[in-house]
Amino acid sequence: MTTPYIRTSRPADALRPVRITPGFLPHADGSCLIEAGNTKVICTATIDEHLPPFLRGKDQGWVTAEYGMLPASTAGRMRREAAAGKQSGRTQEIQRLIGRSLRAVVDLSKLGERQILIDCDVIQADGGTRTASITGAFVALHMAVSKLLAAGMLIHNPIREAVAAVSAGVVGGVPLLDLDYPEDSGCDSDVNIVMTASGNIIEIQGTAEGAPFSRAELNALIELGHKGVAELVQHQQQALEAY
Amino acid sequence: MTTPYIRTSRPADALRPVRITPGFLPHADGSCLIEAGNTKVICTATIDEHLPPFLRGKDQGWVTAEYGMLPASTAGRMRREAAAGKQSGRTQEIQRLIGRSLRAVVDLSKLGERQILIDCDVIQADGGTRTASITGAFVALHMAVSKLLAAGMLIHNPIREAVAAVSAGVVGGVPLLDLDYPEDSGCDSDVNIVMTASGNIIEIQGTAEGAPFSRAELNALIELGHKGVAELVQHQQQALEAY
Amino acid sequence: MTTPYIRTSRPADALRPVRITPGFLPHADGSCLIEAGNTKVICTATIDEHLPPFLRGKDQGWVTAEYGMLPASTAGRMRREAAAGKQSGRTQEIQRLIGRSLRAVVDLSKLGERQILIDCDVIQADGGTRTASITGAFVALHMAVSKLLAAGMLIHNPIREAVAAVSAGVVGGVPLLDLDYPEDSGCDSDVNIVMTASGNIIEIQGTAEGAPFSRAELNALIELGHKGVAELVQHQQQALEAY
Amino acid sequence: MTTPYIRTSRPADALRPVRITPGFLPHADGSCLIEAGNTKVICTATIDEHLPPFLRGKDQGWVTAEYGMLPASTAGRMRREAAAGKQSGRTQEIQRLIGRSLRAVVDLSKLGERQILIDCDVIQADGGTRTASITGAFVALHMAVSKLLAAGMLIHNPIREAVAAVSAGVVGGVPLLDLDYPEDSGCDSDVNIVMTASGNIIEIQGTAEGAPFSRAELNALIELGHKGVAELVQHQQQALEAY
Amino acid sequence: MTTPYIRTSRPADALRPVRITPGFLPHADGSCLIEAGNTKVICTATIDEHLPPFLRGKDQGWVTAEYGMLPASTAGRMRREAAAGKQSGRTQEIQRLIGRSLRAVVDLSKLGERQILIDCDVIQADGGTRTASITGAFVALHMAVSKLLAAGMLIHNPIREAVAAVSAGVVGGVPLLDLDYPEDSGCDSDVNIVMTASGNIIEIQGTAEGAPFSRAELNALIELGHKGVAELVQHQQQALEAY
Amino acid sequence: MTTPYIRTSRPADALRPVRITPGFLPHADGSCLIEAGNTKVICTATIDEHLPPFLRGKDQGWVTAEYGMLPASTAGRMRREAAAGKQSGRTQEIQRLIGRSLRAVVDLSKLGERQILIDCDVIQADGGTRTASITGAFVALHMAVSKLLAAGMLIHNPIREAVAAVSAGVVGGVPLLDLDYPEDSGCDSDVNIVMTASGNIIEIQGTAEGAPFSRAELNALIELGHKGVAELVQHQQQALEAY
Repeated sequence: MTTPYIRTSRPADALRPVRITPGFLPHADGSCLIEAGNTKVICTATIDEHLPPFLRGKDQGWVTAEYGMLPASTAGRMRREAAAGKQSGRTQEIQRLIGRSLRAVVDLSKLGERQILIDCDVIQADGGTRTASITGAFVALHMAVSKLLAAGMLIHNPIREAVAAVSAGVVGGVPLLDLDYPEDSGCDSDVNIVMTASGNIIEIQGTAEGAPFSRAELNALIELGHKGVAELVQHQQQALEAY
Repeated sequence: MTTPYIRTSRPADALRPVRITPGFLPHADGSCLIEAGNTKVICTATIDEHLPPFLRGKDQGWVTAEYGMLPASTAGRMRREAAAGKQSGRTQEIQRLIGRSLRAVVDLSKLGERQILIDCDVIQADGGTRTASITGAFVALHMAVSKLLAAGMLIHNPIREAVAAVSAGVVGGVPLLDLDYPEDSGCDSDVNIVMTASGNIIEIQGTAEGAPFSRAELNALIELGHKGVAELVQHQQQALEAY
Repeated sequence: MTTPYIRTSRPADALRPVRITPGFLPHADGSCLIEAGNTKVICTATIDEHLPPFLRGKDQGWVTAEYGMLPASTAGRMRREAAAGKQSGRTQEIQRLIGRSLRAVVDLSKLGERQILIDCDVIQADGGTRTASITGAFVALHMAVSKLLAAGMLIHNPIREAVAAVSAGVVGGVPLLDLDYPEDSGCDSDVNIVMTASGNIIEIQGTAEGAPFSRAELNALIELGHKGVAELVQHQQQALEAY
Repeated sequence: MTTPYIRTSRPADALRPVRITPGFLPHADGSCLIEAGNTKVICTATIDEHLPPFLRGKDQGWVTAEYGMLPASTAGRMRREAAAGKQSGRTQEIQRLIGRSLRAVVDLSKLGERQILIDCDVIQADGGTRTASITGAFVALHMAVSKLLAAGMLIHNPIREAVAAVSAGVVGGVPLLDLDYPEDSGCDSDVNIVMTASGNIIEIQGTAEGAPFSRAELNALIELGHKGVAELVQHQQQALEAY
Repeated sequence: MTTPYIRTSRPADALRPVRITPGFLPHADGSCLIEAGNTKVICTATIDEHLPPFLRGKDQGWVTAEYGMLPASTAGRMRREAAAGKQSGRTQEIQRLIGRSLRAVVDLSKLGERQILIDCDVIQADGGTRTASITGAFVALHMAVSKLLAAGMLIHNPIREAVAAVSAGVVGGVPLLDLDYPEDSGCDSDVNIVMTASGNIIEIQGTAEGAPFSRAELNALIELGHKGVAELVQHQQQALEAY
Repeated sequence: MTTPYIRTSRPADALRPVRITPGFLPHADGSCLIEAGNTKVICTATIDEHLPPFLRGKDQGWVTAEYGMLPASTAGRMRREAAAGKQSGRTQEIQRLIGRSLRAVVDLSKLGERQILIDCDVIQADGGTRTASITGAFVALHMAVSKLLAAGMLIHNPIREAVAAVSAGVVGGVPLLDLDYPEDSGCDSDVNIVMTASGNIIEIQGTAEGAPFSRAELNALIELGHKGVAELVQHQQQALEAY
């Protein structure tokens, strides 16, 4: 792209419309549907009182995540991973990221010898599925932890603070917050930022899709991400309070 | 169960509340969300202009289906099949059944050398997921075929008539239509019936879960199924007309 | 087929010649070779004193089955499933059916905490391999149970009654018992019936291969199946008595 | 074993009773049941007019083999490889050996651009299944080639001479021909010998199961093998002539 | 860690000793052994004149990478991935990163319709294996491209500039360049930086292993990484000139 | 080949230059790099104090081996087995051979309830990788056992004597010791010989690659192998003494 990209749908530093519907799947211990524009992800948290063997006896718990996409969630149907017989490298990368991001805000030693299993299933994909998954997964995790606290199975809240995530990228030379799929496909560079409510970084992944980018560009993107995460944390709080 | 089971929520021969939302996933060529009580399935149809090699050159098309469940769709989270690396025998059985049921109402020779891929993904499970999948899949298939007809890619409609499916079972000695999960778990026998709008049988699968059952019982269950399918076909028509 | 099909080899309601050779594989705890016309299946039962973990501690036993076909059992060699690295959906469907059918006539609470593993391996295939497998598997199971009773490892016989299975189908408009492969390939509809010696239904699977079928046709096929199973049960008894 | 082993059933240099039943599986292009004592193997040959891609265009054919065992062929049921999802190292080793042994007596340039697929399925195992497989596989291969010659699809016979195989081993210090399972389990060393009708070696695999063995012992075992193969070649000829 | 960490072996902003041995594996089209302290990786590049089907006909080439570790490369032997039957999520993540990093400095439209396959195999692991792999892989890639240029198979050099990678992390509150394994295990945060010779960013991956980190810390780590990459690019040039 | 092959690089009965570098991988309990001409293999031994379940409680230990090749170790890059998702039949055959060969010189009852895991990874391949692996693996095994003895974890040395392996083959009618890859590809027959220091046979595998071979040829090859192993055992001793 040689001419600057003008985003007409919303300002360059604006999030897409966000909607978080808590309690979306009643069988789970925590759940929500998170919508970020046309991206829709079901996030659930399941409490499992049995740690896998390699984690037992360390006087701490665990949080782990799995990620998937419905075959028809994307334009041009994806192959079903269960039928293919394995999860793609991309899927594994994303679910590892979700798990790490959540564990960074949980004091595992306060969780007891149990694990919380997060599932993020993309119903509809329009860019930013991994960041929406993290933002929604935190809501599901929070609900599951609240359930444990309410039942007296936990005394102290193991969650230190909220975590949310968003993308930012340079498209046609312009730094933009929260890329949708067409923007993401045409961007020069792309950063996924996972941050805490207090504004610290948990994970940052920046990739030059086209030309390598300067540190100045990186800083502009981080600045946008910081703003976006702050707004997402408010959406999380409202959803949790409303539930 | 030695005392007769009394279903209090609805009459013995009544379906659970049915709701079909067509166009649920915009990326697919046909789609709906079907809700039968607390069972919720997303059904999509994707047109694929490339037949797999073993079906080419026969001057006909193909309809095939895949089925999956979100891990948190059930009470007590299921293992994710993509992570396990294979689809269970149950999953394969169900997706083969869905494909056969749809092909039975399609004149494949009128479909052209293309295939229609059906995906049925269970979001929430409360019994009867395979029959709801068939009923919803027909709606998605119909929408995809209508799209081909509207685009002039098909001249003659290959769909002969509608197909829908429902379960019936004997619980505590009482024949009941459309079992929910607790009824299904405690039933003596269980029949899944796939029927056409004109009342003919496409597939019938009856299983003695407890004691073997008599032909009289089988006939009572088929009678219930017949009634249920007739109602489901009306729901399908209303959904398709409303879209 | 528009002209009625005339079966010349035997009457429409006749089984193919049946031969059951008990004790066919001496290493197994029970075994037979069952021949139904040109269909030949080796069925064995192996007693395993160790239940799999998820079945332990429930004060009951288990019966399960596996099914396979020699690659050269069919015209036009099949791919070897062990080389392909997985069992097909059809194979899994059949072995699940065999297991369910046998468990329906066994009081698992009288079997002790052990399992009986059934293997059905098709040596030559000419239609009806799954029903012949069930009929032969019951003979092998009975022999294994008799061995446990003779050894004093069981006090009460856990087998309630015999089970056998047969197919029936409408070919060229004519209902026929026990289809061979050419009849099965050309049939309009096809029912597999698993019944007890006392004439009750354990499992019924009816499929419209061509046009959907009416309830009258279904009844005619069940009638034929009932007659066939009654004869097969006599063959089972003779084989067990002769051994 | 410190005391010499005395084989009472037959002389030290005698084969077990051999029986070869040609034409055992009618769907295959060549087949036999080979029995060597209590070891029983079904061997088939299937003509495939389509070479795999990596063998095409070289103006020659191919012969390849697969091997399997019925789960109940052994004392103490083996796990089914199709259910386990892979063939064991032992299975692969054996089927590679069978393929190499047959290719060594076939002029592949005279076979045309086609392959012959050999299947060896062990019905009952009592030692020597791989050598019986080779001996029987040659009979099946010969029948398939004769079919091609009779049909005018081959002009020149690509088979140079017969091949057969047998084991020999030192048990309790005594060299024995054609070990059965108990002898094989208790032997000091074990040689599998694949030889041509003209007495040349195609493959020899000698393994010290207990103590390493001297070259004198190896020579004694090869001598026995030579005698055994000569007799097996006669059994092959008789079977092929009788068919 | 509450007390500041003092690195005694080298300054906080110093790389470990680097040694690049070009031409290490003579069968490959480009290769080197790269040693960064006790981390040792064999990197090779293989020219493949056949693009995979999905990349053909786009008038451009491709660069892709695979990564592996010898089981004994780590303290406490790792499981062999070939024996486990799959590559771990970590392995896939790393090999995807290596491929993306190299493609970012290659003009694929100048590479012709061929691919260059990179293999990075870790012989000995002491932290930083993914960054050493990228740095070494560029050397192997450069050698393979030079071979194509020398042979006249390429007219224009598709490589735009060099790429190298290094880690930096905060340990005990102190920002350090190029972490070894003990430092990496105990660090608070960890950044992997992939940069061009001209100092632009291709990929940045920052992870809070302990506490979330501030933007100031991130900037300090990027500064260190910038310095490290500049030195690594010199090592690459010397190795390529010496060859 | 119709004219006799003249090996010009070294005498017909000479080994390629051998170099064994003990202690090559410091993380392992025993390790070496073995070079036989241009064939280079890293061999390691890892002590594992936990026997797999099926070997426990027998009052003995175990030695087992895994084998792999770097993709770029061969001319014309091999597919990576970890990416392919399984080990080839050839790989499994070789690693089973290495394990058997080592166990034949170890008194497992003197090893305690532990296992020693051998890894042989081919860095560069020019024929004879399996025999070089065995020769090098013995060095690694010896080092691991010495470590156990030095630590007082073993009282009696479980190693009875050294084992080494080499190939010999008939090329152009001439028997040659220690074939390199071009000789191996063009040979008439090929024998791999695994022998003890005392000159007894542990394993012999002879294969007619072209024409079947006579017993006289086999004897000539064994004679060469005997000479080669005796020299290799000296190289092993020197390497172990030098360490």
